[in-house]
Amino acid sequence: MNNAELQDFVRSKIPVADFMQITVTKVESDLIEVCAPLAPNSNVHGTLFGGSSTAIGLVAAWMLVFMRMQQEGLGSNLVVLRETTNYLRPVTGAFTAIAKFENENIWNDFVAALNRKGRARIPVVSTIRQDGEVGARIEAEFAANIRRND
Amino acid sequence: MNNAELQDFVRSKIPVADFMQITVTKVESDLIEVCAPLAPNSNVHGTLFGGSSTAIGLVAAWMLVFMRMQQEGLGSNLVVLRETTNYLRPVTGAFTAIAKFENENIWNDFVAALNRKGRARIPVVSTIRQDGEVGARIEAEFAANIRRND
Repeated sequence: MNNAELQDFVRSKIPVADFMQITVTKVESDLIEVCAPLAPNSNVHGTLFGGSSTAIGLVAAWMLVFMRMQQEGLGSNLVVLRETTNYLRPVTGAFTAIAKFENENIWNDFVAALNRKGRARIPVVSTIRQDGEVGARIEAEFAANIRRND
Repeated sequence: MNNAELQDFVRSKIPVADFMQITVTKVESDLIEVCAPLAPNSNVHGTLFGGSSTAIGLVAAWMLVFMRMQQEGLGSNLVVLRETTNYLRPVTGAFTAIAKFENENIWNDFVAALNRKGRARIPVVSTIRQDGEVGARIEAEFAANIRRND
């Protein structure tokens, strides 16, 4: 699944992501970057709506784990369990969301647990940035399970 | 501002809230209830997208504080600082979000601080429910300030 296919999949399956005009701009093994314009995501102050920040951070984080699970034949049974967002400063224009694993062990620990127990949790951090400045930080935890004999 | 005016104001100023088809169904002094259909808010599993849960919970919570501030002549300078969402079970159809103050002191403490210092923070809890079952719980904190001589 290349960047365009990942983007099309998510936008066709999550109508809100399509409305928010999310574009996938970078995909690496431990990082996904998406960008979006302000207009569909603005609030009563004309700045970025907090709900859009969190939703886009969650979509990017979900895509990162989903893509790696796909690549490693681990299925796609992945849901968000909880998240915390800190809104740090107003975002006044087009922005990016970068989702990544905080360190190298996170992915390996997740895969090991998934293979051993059939289910596992994984944390992902997304940051919303405008011109390099962090506007919001979203810390999410996802749960996955794999069905044996799939 | 009656229910329909509040709904129209929010949907005209927050395009995502309009796309999510939020309807204001109940407004009381310490509670706001909104409802929304699943279709625009669904995810890859065909259940409620976590980002929509949080966004709708935040809109309801923001409306509750905004409405009370308007009623008491406290202006409308109100932004979200942080929030935590726990996603408790899948939501598979139309749902409600109920935003409320956890106890009677919260509003009074907020107004007292706002009048004393010109700025204050206030916590609001929103719950997402389908047929009475809680699907997600959003704990948010907002910051407001009033300009003297406005």
